[in-house]
Amino acid sequence: MRHLLAALIVMIAAMVSAGNSRAGDPCLACHEKETPAIVQFWKNSAHFQKQVTCVACHGSDIEANHRRTATVDASRCGTCHAKALTDHKQSKHGISLKAGRGCTRNQTVSEEQQKSCALCHKPGSAKPLVDVECAMFLAQSPEMQRQGCSACHLVETRCDTCHTRHGTDLGAARDPGTCSTCHMGPDHPQAEAWETSRHGVLFKQAGRAAAPSCTTCHMQAGSHNVSKGISSGVPNEEQGRKQEERAFMLSICSQCHTKAFSTRSLADADRIEEQTAALVDEAKQIIQGLQKDGLLSPSPAERRDHPLFGKTFVIGPHMLYEDLSLVESLFFKMKMFYALTAYKGAFHQNPDYAHWFGNAPLKLTLSEIKSQAALLRQVDRLGKRIDNLGSTTKAEQGEFEDIKKKMRILNEKRLKGEISETEYQGKKNKLLNEKVQ
Amino acid sequence: MRHLLAALIVMIAAMVSAGNSRAGDPCLACHEKETPAIVQFWKNSAHFQKQVTCVACHGSDIEANHRRTATVDASRCGTCHAKALTDHKQSKHGISLKAGRGCTRNQTVSEEQQKSCALCHKPGSAKPLVDVECAMFLAQSPEMQRQGCSACHLVETRCDTCHTRHGTDLGAARDPGTCSTCHMGPDHPQAEAWETSRHGVLFKQAGRAAAPSCTTCHMQAGSHNVSKGISSGVPNEEQGRKQEERAFMLSICSQCHTKAFSTRSLADADRIEEQTAALVDEAKQIIQGLQKDGLLSPSPAERRDHPLFGKTFVIGPHMLYEDLSLVESLFFKMKMFYALTAYKGAFHQNPDYAHWFGNAPLKLTLSEIKSQAALLRQVDRLGKRIDNLGSTTKAEQGEFEDIKKKMRILNEKRLKGEISETEYQGKKNKLLNEKVQ
Amino acid sequence: MRHLLAALIVMIAAMVSAGNSRAGDPCLACHEKETPAIVQFWKNSAHFQKQVTCVACHGSDIEANHRRTATVDASRCGTCHAKALTDHKQSKHGISLKAGRGCTRNQTVSEEQQKSCALCHKPGSAKPLVDVECAMFLAQSPEMQRQGCSACHLVETRCDTCHTRHGTDLGAARDPGTCSTCHMGPDHPQAEAWETSRHGVLFKQAGRAAAPSCTTCHMQAGSHNVSKGISSGVPNEEQGRKQEERAFMLSICSQCHTKAFSTRSLADADRIEEQTAALVDEAKQIIQGLQKDGLLSPSPAERRDHPLFGKTFVIGPHMLYEDLSLVESLFFKMKMFYALTAYKGAFHQNPDYAHWFGNAPLKLTLSEIKSQAALLRQVDRLGKRIDNLGSTTKAEQGEFEDIKKKMRILNEKRLKGEISETEYQGKKNKLLNEKVQ
Repeated sequence: MRHLLAALIVMIAAMVSAGNSRAGDPCLACHEKETPAIVQFWKNSAHFQKQVTCVACHGSDIEANHRRTATVDASRCGTCHAKALTDHKQSKHGISLKAGRGCTRNQTVSEEQQKSCALCHKPGSAKPLVDVECAMFLAQSPEMQRQGCSACHLVETRCDTCHTRHGTDLGAARDPGTCSTCHMGPDHPQAEAWETSRHGVLFKQAGRAAAPSCTTCHMQAGSHNVSKGISSGVPNEEQGRKQEERAFMLSICSQCHTKAFSTRSLADADRIEEQTAALVDEAKQIIQGLQKDGLLSPSPAERRDHPLFGKTFVIGPHMLYEDLSLVESLFFKMKMFYALTAYKGAFHQNPDYAHWFGNAPLKLTLSEIKSQAALLRQVDRLGKRIDNLGSTTKAEQGEFEDIKKKMRILNEKRLKGEISETEYQGKKNKLLNEKVQ
Repeated sequence: MRHLLAALIVMIAAMVSAGNSRAGDPCLACHEKETPAIVQFWKNSAHFQKQVTCVACHGSDIEANHRRTATVDASRCGTCHAKALTDHKQSKHGISLKAGRGCTRNQTVSEEQQKSCALCHKPGSAKPLVDVECAMFLAQSPEMQRQGCSACHLVETRCDTCHTRHGTDLGAARDPGTCSTCHMGPDHPQAEAWETSRHGVLFKQAGRAAAPSCTTCHMQAGSHNVSKGISSGVPNEEQGRKQEERAFMLSICSQCHTKAFSTRSLADADRIEEQTAALVDEAKQIIQGLQKDGLLSPSPAERRDHPLFGKTFVIGPHMLYEDLSLVESLFFKMKMFYALTAYKGAFHQNPDYAHWFGNAPLKLTLSEIKSQAALLRQVDRLGKRIDNLGSTTKAEQGEFEDIKKKMRILNEKRLKGEISETEYQGKKNKLLNEKVQ
Repeated sequence: MRHLLAALIVMIAAMVSAGNSRAGDPCLACHEKETPAIVQFWKNSAHFQKQVTCVACHGSDIEANHRRTATVDASRCGTCHAKALTDHKQSKHGISLKAGRGCTRNQTVSEEQQKSCALCHKPGSAKPLVDVECAMFLAQSPEMQRQGCSACHLVETRCDTCHTRHGTDLGAARDPGTCSTCHMGPDHPQAEAWETSRHGVLFKQAGRAAAPSCTTCHMQAGSHNVSKGISSGVPNEEQGRKQEERAFMLSICSQCHTKAFSTRSLADADRIEEQTAALVDEAKQIIQGLQKDGLLSPSPAERRDHPLFGKTFVIGPHMLYEDLSLVESLFFKMKMFYALTAYKGAFHQNPDYAHWFGNAPLKLTLSEIKSQAALLRQVDRLGKRIDNLGSTTKAEQGEFEDIKKKMRILNEKRLKGEISETEYQGKKNKLLNEKVQ
């Protein structure tokens, strides 16, 4: 009901604007001069055709727009594109990213940052539109947060992460390149893996009829629930849902492959995911052992505070990549880069990503961690052996010094005539006896 | 003669099928419903035009096909494509890969795997169609073997490694992307090197007339002997063949370049290949030295058995990437990644692959190996010095304890009255004399 | 004036050649047979249309051309393309590369190399056309210099670094792929960063109208001053020029974006550049500390001579990647690969290059350097503790040996009858007293 009402308001706003003639939008007089390319993108768009004007999306509060405290988020797009928003919210894109700008919670807000508050907050509200619980994000500079993290992770609230801002070209939105701008890189090279797989190569040669692209498998029939068909992240307890997602994905594979072939291919990737997880876990145990024995340098106590857990040692989901010891740095790469590359490579049918970019460095790095852990323990044992040697020598030396001191006192007494030569000789022999007994 | 006969049988089978009308193939009734895309690919193919039906390739044993114990290997394709098969067998693709599934020789065969036996064995035969002598392959899980290794390395017996399964689009087969699905990645980035070289860029801009792609140089006139013109792997003893291959390649380069320019470019790449080999060998010597002195952790004895050589230390062609020490892991990357990238980058005229992706990490990693080897030796020397110190101290302490013990016995005798005070004093002085002499 | 004269000479030469009819160029008779593709490229070019014949560029000295001592450098192209050359000389491409062949200055010149002298020297002149002051270049083999370095770094004197040699297709020259052949790789992945950014993806989808490519921002209106608009390398002292360059770049961004958005995006990248520089500097301090304390292995004295600074320790602009210790190798990657990737990724609006390929490995590697430095210091301390233990023991042992020696002499005297038993006992007790006092 609320959606209908909102949609109605937008439509009325659009009609009012259009009533002023299309070109009569209050923004155009200036913006045709100030930002002509933006206006031109819009004029080429379906929005223009359907008389969706500037104010329809940006609202009519010109002041707020110029102060950049008004923004166009997913809920605004959803007033017209309700089905897409509902699907989006059911996907990893829309539900569980828990990433975005941490401005109001964990940092002092600079004037520069305040201008951007509207990207995350409804005006006047301290509650962010997006909860930020990503330690890795919180450990970065505001500039890296914006350019490195939020550029992708604001997808929860920002439709223009995939869609161009003022154009409405669906071809562009569906283009695998669009997905690739985020789904690439060492942490999840889906783009690279698909692009150089038989699927990607055939798609490039002959388009959608010849082979699947991202949307073929992950946005069937234009659904914005991009997580549909992915059983990988579903907890083992939810076997029903796991099977349901797999069945959906197999129905897509089966459009070109036999079900037997597809079933085995995806089952192979499942096993590879489990195998990589086991290798990561093996490395984790080794590092936890080193940490327990105080062999990590810097020690957790010597590190800057973890944004969520302070001085606690973190090697789980909220692990940072700052202030690590060498073995932890290697572990980070295993967990965040190579393991993901190996199994996502397998799920995207790319032998090089599964094996050479994934499995090989994963196992090589596990070897490096083990070997370096052995060196750390070897060096530690040397230190302990020196401690033992040192303490033995020190104890002996202490005893020795003690006797020397007593002998000096005895000699002084003799020299002062306080004891006779015979007394001195007797006491001296007694002292020497004690020393060797 | 046998080939002719086989070809005849296939032709007759094809004609018989065609006699039942094209659509009359026994498979189609079901498969048009079950796997419509596959049928459609075939219907768009030259095979369909020439009445090469399902049974022509898959045989008429429907049971075997449904059990997946019948398979279409290179020899089947060769019954019609005899020249292509002969060329293929003379190339590295067809002769010497020695890779594939190791199911029947080195592992217990699971039910899952048995279903795939036909991919490697003729029914009833224990001898694999492909010999498996690749230790790296044998050390992987069956899933990684399938998804990571065999996807490329079955090219020996499987034409569909390059050709699509049910289509016959030669444009697709010749597309550089098709070669790239295997000839990419850290172990041999020919695809990446070519693609971002002037050749690759010009080819992308203006096609085959403007610049060479993979097939221009490596499959001249459609030859399936992809090794023709490559002198790099030819043993130094076979100078005649080496020169012959080079002359062939120069004849291709000379279609666009002066012979002088091409000769020097390829000679440069030859030298770079030699130089990288020398750097790899330098690293190998260092590691063999460490191994001889027992400084690798884990030691070869502590590792899982090598699939071919058991507990023997392997750093040659059959080196694994499991259970390595840190310096060996670095060596593996030098040998398998950076050296190959440097000289294959040079052969494909790509400065960034020759230098920044190849030469620079190759030399950096050699430095890392040397530096880490120095650290291992330094730590080892510390251990030996402590051994020496410990043994000195221990010897002295032993002597000391011995005298103390004798003194205690002497004192007991005195206290028991077994020896006189004078006797005691004499023996005691004798003991003390012994200690300091 | 000299330019005008030179241009006139070329024009006259061209007209004279053309007078012999286009096909009448003295080179064509042979080269149409010897290098038909080169001739064909030329025949398809604007040069052919405008009667710019072989001799117009290569000169009429056939002997010199066949000996490869005549060459076509930028100044030759500039006789016609004066504006392009002037712009080029004002850019980083044309002024400050200081890279090229080091043949005549630092190495013995082989016959092979001498043939290429004309690429760098005017005939008869020892002064290279390009000054070579790049230590990294000088440390490479001549083959790697040619294939890995000069292929890009001769851009200062060679227009064919970007333009094809005998064609004049401006589309090819402007193609982002052309720039990419050099501006790629770990040392400055501008190509990769742009290509997988929204800009690159939209450009690939819909061309120049949809999004900027390299030339849009860096060669506005066809200017060959590719450094225009880049404030990043401008020294902080030249604030005026810094602001001027930034203003120019913002004028380009503003063709599509609001000025506020563009200003903040570029300011973010500025901050990220500063932040990465600070992290690199932190690592540098650590390594300089290790070097000061003699903890780098190999030590600078143990290394081969640095081409410019001999045995001096170099970790600044002329750092090599040979003969480094492990921490220096890691530092090289921070400085030359990850820092550059992070901020150039940000300047090209690519979150994955800014963050996952840049910032994350930059910080991980800093951690690795710190952790390894701590290990080196720990091992060094162990060595010193053993030295102390050893010297203590040795001192004690020395004292001990001294007394033992004196006791032996005393005993000998007693046995020889040189001293009485009482004298012996007295002297012996005195010695023992000394020992414990």
